[in-house]
Amino acid sequence: MAPLADLYHLTMAYALWRTGRHRDPAAAELFFRREPFGAAFAVGAGLGQALRSLGALRFSAADIAYLRSVLPSTTEDAFFDYLCTVDASEVTVTSVPEGSIVFSRVRHTAKRPHVPICGVCGRGDVTVLSPQVPLLQVKGPLLVVQLLETTLLCLVSYASLVATNAARFRLLAGPQMKLMELGLRRAQGPDGGLSASKYSYIGGFDYTSNILAGKLYGIPVRGTVAHSFIMSFRSLEEVQPRVLSPLEGGEPVDLPSLAESWLQRVCELLGTPSDKPNRGELAAFVSYAIAFPQDFQGLLDTYCVMRSGLPNFCAVALALHQLGYRAIGVRLDSGDLIQQSKETRRVLRACGAHFQVPWFGSIPIAVSNDISERSVEDFVREGSEIDMVGVGTNLVTCPLQPSLGCVYKLVEVNGSPCLKFTEEEEKMTIPGIKAIYRLYDAAGHPFMDLMALENEPSPSVGQELAVHILGRRGEATKIRPSAVKPLHRMYLRDGQVCEELPSLQEVRSHAQASLNLLSPVHRQLRDPQPYPVAVTEKLHLLLVELQNASQ
Amino acid sequence: MAPLADLYHLTMAYALWRTGRHRDPAAAELFFRREPFGAAFAVGAGLGQALRSLGALRFSAADIAYLRSVLPSTTEDAFFDYLCTVDASEVTVTSVPEGSIVFSRVRHTAKRPHVPICGVCGRGDVTVLSPQVPLLQVKGPLLVVQLLETTLLCLVSYASLVATNAARFRLLAGPQMKLMELGLRRAQGPDGGLSASKYSYIGGFDYTSNILAGKLYGIPVRGTVAHSFIMSFRSLEEVQPRVLSPLEGGEPVDLPSLAESWLQRVCELLGTPSDKPNRGELAAFVSYAIAFPQDFQGLLDTYCVMRSGLPNFCAVALALHQLGYRAIGVRLDSGDLIQQSKETRRVLRACGAHFQVPWFGSIPIAVSNDISERSVEDFVREGSEIDMVGVGTNLVTCPLQPSLGCVYKLVEVNGSPCLKFTEEEEKMTIPGIKAIYRLYDAAGHPFMDLMALENEPSPSVGQELAVHILGRRGEATKIRPSAVKPLHRMYLRDGQVCEELPSLQEVRSHAQASLNLLSPVHRQLRDPQPYPVAVTEKLHLLLVELQNASQ
Repeated sequence: MAPLADLYHLTMAYALWRTGRHRDPAAAELFFRREPFGAAFAVGAGLGQALRSLGALRFSAADIAYLRSVLPSTTEDAFFDYLCTVDASEVTVTSVPEGSIVFSRVRHTAKRPHVPICGVCGRGDVTVLSPQVPLLQVKGPLLVVQLLETTLLCLVSYASLVATNAARFRLLAGPQMKLMELGLRRAQGPDGGLSASKYSYIGGFDYTSNILAGKLYGIPVRGTVAHSFIMSFRSLEEVQPRVLSPLEGGEPVDLPSLAESWLQRVCELLGTPSDKPNRGELAAFVSYAIAFPQDFQGLLDTYCVMRSGLPNFCAVALALHQLGYRAIGVRLDSGDLIQQSKETRRVLRACGAHFQVPWFGSIPIAVSNDISERSVEDFVREGSEIDMVGVGTNLVTCPLQPSLGCVYKLVEVNGSPCLKFTEEEEKMTIPGIKAIYRLYDAAGHPFMDLMALENEPSPSVGQELAVHILGRRGEATKIRPSAVKPLHRMYLRDGQVCEELPSLQEVRSHAQASLNLLSPVHRQLRDPQPYPVAVTEKLHLLLVELQNASQ
Repeated sequence: MAPLADLYHLTMAYALWRTGRHRDPAAAELFFRREPFGAAFAVGAGLGQALRSLGALRFSAADIAYLRSVLPSTTEDAFFDYLCTVDASEVTVTSVPEGSIVFSRVRHTAKRPHVPICGVCGRGDVTVLSPQVPLLQVKGPLLVVQLLETTLLCLVSYASLVATNAARFRLLAGPQMKLMELGLRRAQGPDGGLSASKYSYIGGFDYTSNILAGKLYGIPVRGTVAHSFIMSFRSLEEVQPRVLSPLEGGEPVDLPSLAESWLQRVCELLGTPSDKPNRGELAAFVSYAIAFPQDFQGLLDTYCVMRSGLPNFCAVALALHQLGYRAIGVRLDSGDLIQQSKETRRVLRACGAHFQVPWFGSIPIAVSNDISERSVEDFVREGSEIDMVGVGTNLVTCPLQPSLGCVYKLVEVNGSPCLKFTEEEEKMTIPGIKAIYRLYDAAGHPFMDLMALENEPSPSVGQELAVHILGRRGEATKIRPSAVKPLHRMYLRDGQVCEELPSLQEVRSHAQASLNLLSPVHRQLRDPQPYPVAVTEKLHLLLVELQNASQ
């Protein structure tokens, strides 16, 4: 694979090569500066794909020919020869396991309590730094490390964003409601759609409509039927073939006639005129039932749900029931979905009771139509009768925050930590290669991430430790963790995958388990308690020293 | 290519096949219901890619095997045999030429004037329909036509959205300011990034940073240098090699020493302490200048623009000038970009005047850092000195409206127009296959799109015509067009491309020319005058008839 790179990576590569610095040992980190969507957490994703892409890093002859045509004509030939040899064989990557919860700064809407400025640290206080925890740490030759920036950002950023978005829908929907991703048509092309399917599944969705995602990733696929199918029928005369045999065998039955007779009985029960249900819609339902007698489902809102779609569905489902088959669901795609779900449930129950079909009242009701987080909250709060929710646009485009804003920053070159000290305080980075630990409280909840110098000993369980919480000015804080886990694992050592990458299903389970471990105060989606990220005393001292040196 | 499809397209395909309707002649339209971003127009894009994808439509053996595993076990074998034969060889597509302006309903923020309800048409008045003009019309066998839904939506929807977004940036920036797309790292994966580069270029951007887009599509690529490069240097001692020969030949010169001596002179001129500029940054600039003496540019904000980046840049650029080379630009990436651009320009001019380097004052200033439409408006309004703007996140993710909401609806089956009459008025469709004309006024501006029945004669230039404007209740409106052009061309006839698809460059030119043709009242980005879309008397009568029949 040709590297996903911006032109400046190549001009910089040339400048590094030309100045003999291309093989200097370097380290970079990938992180984001603020939690997405105003919560305290995000779900780290895309790491498997990013790691696999490193293995394929190579410039083809065609890539080189193209680069020759766009780099300045003064670029030396030998550089292109060198580029032909570039790969990730000297790159080492540590990363949070895919599906892990990662924390960063919370964007507060409410006013924060006043925190007094520390009299000791003063202007150079490092505690103003964002609590940014790297998802990935990359080590290798400087030229290659800087060249990987866009590849890694491109593969991790959207993946993590949409996995986080999906996790939010899951938290709002609760564990029972089925969630289905149907955003392929709203994504940034086929590849964006595939990413959306894959990472929504990691975040907690149950199904996708995207058959290519099903085929490539093994995600369960689901689908109902579209308005276009319903609209393509105009009358019962069009139904062909017309007969269906009972499930347990026996004489085939003319389904249109049977459905029409059931329609009379349903309309009588509901007290609605039996000439109102659209017969084209009834024909579509009957045709679908003949094709899928064991998987019949109805889309109810092509015409009018209460006067047409629902009576037609009940008629066909009851006719099928008479032949031994069981309908599997209905879908509502417009109007007041909560109200309609309740009315639909009432009618399904009434039919079930009146016609003595006990399972009829619990036929699953699915909804779609521009479903947002707010919609799902309303479904739950207002006691809707909705069993399954299809989400497209508001899942895949993440309109509440369409970009995670991941960045990739050099933290060390030739053993010296790098500090970026720009016009904006928030854009400062935490220099040096770090060891990162997640600390757990007695209840098993993670309560702090701690960054240390690479060669410091790991914090010990049950022992008191003084740390400096990032984003807070002031004295060191004393903590005593009940459990300590290294946050990163080494996945790539000198270009070789050294830890087996988990399956999609394993990543999904890890994400759900990690979400469940979160303390409720960090899991809540609005105005959560910020999750503290701290540095050890030693790292703190290094930060102060570097900042003072660059003043 | 396996079709980009949702599972329900396959269940519907089976139901159609099972009921013998799969080869019924059908027609569908692709359109969107509301203009994006609250303007009156959008730029139609993605059509070339969509048409090309139809040529590749085919189910592979692996696709079929997968579909067997997910469709109900009752699905007949013969259906899968049939699927193996499915392609687009009987599909005909008409479309607006790619890069055309397309119109739909305007989302109004301001209050609309009161429009009296027509006493004639009453409840069934078709004029409440959205003024939705199809981008594409597709004809073919029903099974294939419905199967294409997601492929076409996926390839057209984001492409049109981002082309429109880019066009808005272009309109705000004016014709002179250079616009560069740098969104690869913020896109939905590599493919989303490529789409963003391609369709931003169509919408009016000049450059991309994405080298793969440059290679694949021939879009001009540009790039400066990143903070990581600057941060990888700590002192002038690290510069290696150190010498540069003058452009016109002669003894090589030690560039670090020359730059250091120029830095003293620059600091003296600016009245700033010469020990303040960061020597790592200076080393990075010198190294870059030795690698690219004819293409030297500086990123100014790794440390402090005024105290470090700008003096260092001027020192190196003046040293290069002494050797006959000319620096090509600077970039600012944080802080108050307008203010910094003015200060930078002042310093560049001061250096140019003092050191008698006339071109120095007009070195191009580029900016980046979360640039939005609002930023570009501010740059223009506040008289910034910015020559080039790099846009990433706010271009490719379209945060003001992350989805165009395109839909694809069946409009005719077996010669009968289809009407969808749902729970939401806005979701109604305009049935039947239509001919569409764009009407121009005497000034050459398009003033109305007119939909007619397929077999109606074209409206005549200069002749009065009664039409019904969609979205307005009331009597027919009399119009007299000065020019009339069919809006669609036929690109695919029975699966064969019958009109050569334009090059990317041609599409871009067409888009820019189309934007220029727009009347200012329709081109303005906020509270534009809605662009009227009308139907002929005959189509109006058909709509009334169909709606009344479905009441």
